Amino acid sequence: MRKALITGIAGFAGGHLAESLIEAGWEVAGIERHGAVLDHPVFLLDRVKVEECDILAARELGRVIGEFQPDAIFHLAGTTHIPMAQSDPQMAFETNIKGSLNILDATAASAPSARLILVSSAEVYGKSRPEEMPLTEDRPLRPASIYGLTKLCAEETAFYYARTRGLDAVVLRPFNHIGPGQRPRFVSASFALQIARIEKGLQPPVLEVGNLDPARDFTDARDMVRGYRLAVGKCDSGSVYNICSGRAYPIREILDRLLKLSDLEIEVRPSAERTRATDVPIFRGDHSRFTAATGWRPEYGIDDTLKAILDYWRGRVKLNRGKSRG
Amino acid sequence: MRKALITGIAGFAGGHLAESLIEAGWEVAGIERHGAVLDHPVFLLDRVKVEECDILAARELGRVIGEFQPDAIFHLAGTTHIPMAQSDPQMAFETNIKGSLNILDATAASAPSARLILVSSAEVYGKSRPEEMPLTEDRPLRPASIYGLTKLCAEETAFYYARTRGLDAVVLRPFNHIGPGQRPRFVSASFALQIARIEKGLQPPVLEVGNLDPARDFTDARDMVRGYRLAVGKCDSGSVYNICSGRAYPIREILDRLLKLSDLEIEVRPSAERTRATDVPIFRGDHSRFTAATGWRPEYGIDDTLKAILDYWRGRVKLNRGKSRG
Repeated sequence: MRKALITGIAGFAGGHLAESLIEAGWEVAGIERHGAVLDHPVFLLDRVKVEECDILAARELGRVIGEFQPDAIFHLAGTTHIPMAQSDPQMAFETNIKGSLNILDATAASAPSARLILVSSAEVYGKSRPEEMPLTEDRPLRPASIYGLTKLCAEETAFYYARTRGLDAVVLRPFNHIGPGQRPRFVSASFALQIARIEKGLQPPVLEVGNLDPARDFTDARDMVRGYRLAVGKCDSGSVYNICSGRAYPIREILDRLLKLSDLEIEVRPSAERTRATDVPIFRGDHSRFTAATGWRPEYGIDDTLKAILDYWRGRVKLNRGKSRG
Repeated sequence: MRKALITGIAGFAGGHLAESLIEAGWEVAGIERHGAVLDHPVFLLDRVKVEECDILAARELGRVIGEFQPDAIFHLAGTTHIPMAQSDPQMAFETNIKGSLNILDATAASAPSARLILVSSAEVYGKSRPEEMPLTEDRPLRPASIYGLTKLCAEETAFYYARTRGLDAVVLRPFNHIGPGQRPRFVSASFALQIARIEKGLQPPVLEVGNLDPARDFTDARDMVRGYRLAVGKCDSGSVYNICSGRAYPIREILDRLLKLSDLEIEVRPSAERTRATDVPIFRGDHSRFTAATGWRPEYGIDDTLKAILDYWRGRVKLNRGKSRG
């Protein structure tokens, strides 16, 4: 039985990845920081061993990796909240750059033949013009956020370990991924949560929205993590791959499709508070390199994904009497 | 009177830069970590104010920059010892990447119109083949050392602050620079120190050498820091410039030229201990971008430089009765 270690396993992608690996017959362990909540259903099965370990505790990390001897390590841990990274760059550098160094260094020392999958982000591309779409992996990297900058530095660190230490390391650049379990600070979850609350009579039939014009490349999180899993056997060490749908959906389309999944009449109201300035009208990736390497293609239709998100929030609104964790 | 702040002012380049700026009529202040030794003659003049401040103390850094209000900040501080960075990557990341973040962040906050000169290193290019010489700034960056990797991440951080925060930041990539004051772990200083010791009868007339075949691009440190100074008024923010002689000198030639500067007969003896493996037979840069921007060209001839190095060690060997600080 092949063994996988996931850092940041309590996160949105972490839970889906653990589920995908278990379904594919892997033994799965994970590490998480103190106080992390494991709320993906996969953790109810009691088949995933989760250890408390900070990715900044280099020595402890080495011990966990050395004891478990994983065949694959998926490095998902880090600060993913873009505004939080922006307001505390020191913290973001610490967690995302030094955290990645620690994982790479511990893997090279304690499980040198494991494949390491470093999950980066399409945020490394930064501001790009519509005529530059779809983005291929060799586009210039000009991150527009501290978060994107830290991911760029983490990527360079992974390439360094692959180049000079012979580490079997692959870098993945996921574009936006959505699905059940994502926090309502992300747009599709925000819309779905509001619809679920309206359906339960917890808020008036008014859905607050931000800017609906930008188009983004959305992939179902379950497709995304299947991609992470497929990258273990097939991608080239020292290389980088986009994972994305290759389609750009205007936020307006996401909203309209979600509204069609509800029977209610809901008024859509622009909210200044929810409107963020963006200089990037469209963001779309090219996954042909990853598809050539792995055969991966997205399988969930956009309506399947949005229905799963809405049903997730319908379940939680009932359970939580309208409370959400933001 | 224009004001310059130098981080890492006690270092080899720092002293030369302080001298160059004072000669050009600048007011100069510097910061250094606790315990640093200020041994360049410029510090005897009592015209340079040096404050003790760790570049990892972000708040203190902001205070020093805010109080001094420099027109230019030269960021030289960091771990420059390549083997030390290699054996302690966590420390090197902390000092070189987070240290650079702290300087950039403090400048953006406390002296937002200052020009920041981030001194990187030609180590960012990594292993390159002879046919790739001379290296221009747009060559691929594949650092072969942790030190080079940290400099690459520091560069990206500077570009980010220039791009997104409007910081007036320029990145310089110096190639090897040599001169009086450099530590004897560097090759020309090592040869010169040995010759000076032989001349004083402190060691037998045998000079131990490592691999003499590699050729490196050597520039006089005094030319180099004049380049740093010229970069203040003339280079483009957000851009990167090589500074180098554009000539590759085989180590054997450096040795022969130094030996000619002494009257003694000295035997040259290969030492396994001093021989480091290198995969890079020749390393040579292209400074045409920097020369086009500033008019800079190296002025010291190689023999002038080597004579200055030898005379420096002749003076120190006499003073120190053969002791050196490694």
